[in-house]
Amino acid sequence: MATRVSPAAEDREQEGDIVERCRGFMCPPVTDINVLQGSKEEMRTRMEMLIMETQAEFCRALQEVDGGTFKVDRWDRKEGGGGISCVMQDGKVFEKAGVNVSVVFGHLTEEAAKQMRSRGKVLKGKDGKLPFCAMGVSSVIHPKNPHIPTVHFNYRYFEIEEEDGAKQWWFGGGTDLTPVYVNKEDAFQFHNTLKEACDKHHSQYYPDFKKWCDRYFYIRHRGETRGIGGIFFDDLDSPSQEEAFSFVKSCAGTVVPCYLPIVYKHLNDSFTDEEKDWQQVRRGRYVEFNLVYDRGVKFGLATPGSRIESILMSLPLTARWEYMHEPAKGSLEAEMLEVLRNPKEWV
Amino acid sequence: MATRVSPAAEDREQEGDIVERCRGFMCPPVTDINVLQGSKEEMRTRMEMLIMETQAEFCRALQEVDGGTFKVDRWDRKEGGGGISCVMQDGKVFEKAGVNVSVVFGHLTEEAAKQMRSRGKVLKGKDGKLPFCAMGVSSVIHPKNPHIPTVHFNYRYFEIEEEDGAKQWWFGGGTDLTPVYVNKEDAFQFHNTLKEACDKHHSQYYPDFKKWCDRYFYIRHRGETRGIGGIFFDDLDSPSQEEAFSFVKSCAGTVVPCYLPIVYKHLNDSFTDEEKDWQQVRRGRYVEFNLVYDRGVKFGLATPGSRIESILMSLPLTARWEYMHEPAKGSLEAEMLEVLRNPKEWV
Repeated sequence: MATRVSPAAEDREQEGDIVERCRGFMCPPVTDINVLQGSKEEMRTRMEMLIMETQAEFCRALQEVDGGTFKVDRWDRKEGGGGISCVMQDGKVFEKAGVNVSVVFGHLTEEAAKQMRSRGKVLKGKDGKLPFCAMGVSSVIHPKNPHIPTVHFNYRYFEIEEEDGAKQWWFGGGTDLTPVYVNKEDAFQFHNTLKEACDKHHSQYYPDFKKWCDRYFYIRHRGETRGIGGIFFDDLDSPSQEEAFSFVKSCAGTVVPCYLPIVYKHLNDSFTDEEKDWQQVRRGRYVEFNLVYDRGVKFGLATPGSRIESILMSLPLTARWEYMHEPAKGSLEAEMLEVLRNPKEWV
Repeated sequence: MATRVSPAAEDREQEGDIVERCRGFMCPPVTDINVLQGSKEEMRTRMEMLIMETQAEFCRALQEVDGGTFKVDRWDRKEGGGGISCVMQDGKVFEKAGVNVSVVFGHLTEEAAKQMRSRGKVLKGKDGKLPFCAMGVSSVIHPKNPHIPTVHFNYRYFEIEEEDGAKQWWFGGGTDLTPVYVNKEDAFQFHNTLKEACDKHHSQYYPDFKKWCDRYFYIRHRGETRGIGGIFFDDLDSPSQEEAFSFVKSCAGTVVPCYLPIVYKHLNDSFTDEEKDWQQVRRGRYVEFNLVYDRGVKFGLATPGSRIESILMSLPLTARWEYMHEPAKGSLEAEMLEVLRNPKEWV
């Protein structure tokens, strides 16, 4: 990997009192505010504050453009922790907009530990038990207008306590765009915003995580990607916890500047029934990816006690499967398919 | 298991010349007619004739009620065999109606052999190779009117040649109903038609295969079945090939009498927007089952060279995911959910 570049000043952690900061959230955080205050130096607290802030910031920006209001559901997990799901359904601009935060803890199931070990993690539990804490913010936005793309992002943190009390931790996440039609300007603005955020931390992050994204969001049975990508990474535990967190903070901070300019730009674009139809077909493919391949969704559906509605919040309000749908040669629909079959470099 | 009852006279194999019978099919069968003629005593020929007949009979019955015409696609599989997909989309009565026949052969992949061994099959290949032949008819019908239920059926035959030239074979299949609202009369007529067909062969078939069906079509993450069941069975290789085939023939013969009376009965039922909406939500669940759990779909999507459009023909034309959808207490929608959460005996 190439030379590391120092994080810019604007990415430094937001200052201020925990209680004060919590006032800006969509609702009180999962962890009790007094507990957060008493542990404000710990990474799990700093990350919980970041994901709550990211949720609030993104929800407000979407409310402003839509005119609608998010429904806020706070849920508890019997086994430990809980979450806050914000959903706007059938709005003026958004058909379905979901922004979810979850903070869960407990002991890893055998299945989960096995999956992590298969990814190369060496995990030594005490009497076979591995206390863990996992948290993240995750969002999928399905707009009504087919000229406004669907966006997805997710930033998460994982912490496991080993036998000797030492902690293993890592970050993961990414942001990616799923347009219905190719728009090179949008694609450039989206990818370039991500690249600039990445470049502040490491010059290899954008190229590596862009490739990872194309590989991950791949609908194998169709031979096409879900969208035009963005960045995706997992198991990030270097160069230090502080710097990995700083990078994740930069990523979370780009969510609004990545997406909202594109929304405003196409807000009043007119569209035909045929364009809407193509959007519905693409949404069908979105459902196929999420239900058949997405590791997070599969893990969630298989986890006892998980909140199904929050996991499946990522599905569009409506989707369509047309038998043997094939865009006309030379059409804009065919151009989109071509790009999905052969991922491009946008910056 | 209880006493076996002899198959009734009307279930005896249809007589007549192969060429003559092929004239009634939706299109020429996958296997060359001369080859079929030269092997008319073999089970694979008799089964291919049966699935082609079932396809034609069901398609004609649906065309008659809808007024539309099936699009017939014949496709070849590079590795051996092919299929015939009949699809009617956006008809007068049916939103999407798919009736698929496939006849494929070649050598089992390691993965497929492993899966079969895990089901208890002892398979001895020659130099690790296992020549196989698999065929079946499969159908999913999604009507427009929410008072007409969705139906699915599938009947298949599998043959594997072992090292010493001996053949292992088995049948599988089933028919099941997915209504949007509970209708006890329909449920009785559907299940009773299946029970009568089963009882002619073995008094334990209906109770055993009804249970198997409820277990198989289960959306685990929702804690609900996909529909109100029917029958489902696999690996049927007793009491003899002749009698197992005779049973499958009876089942295939009930497809039209199971379903068409229900279609005609509700053809002109009026419905509200709310009822249509509930249908769309249930279709979302249908998609969830098929993409997340259905063994056949998963096997198909993972098989190189498989025909994706024929596998995903089972998905509805349109579906809907509403966040936190919860029917009002005491409503007809809540009654349906209750039945899906606690499978009932209908006969």
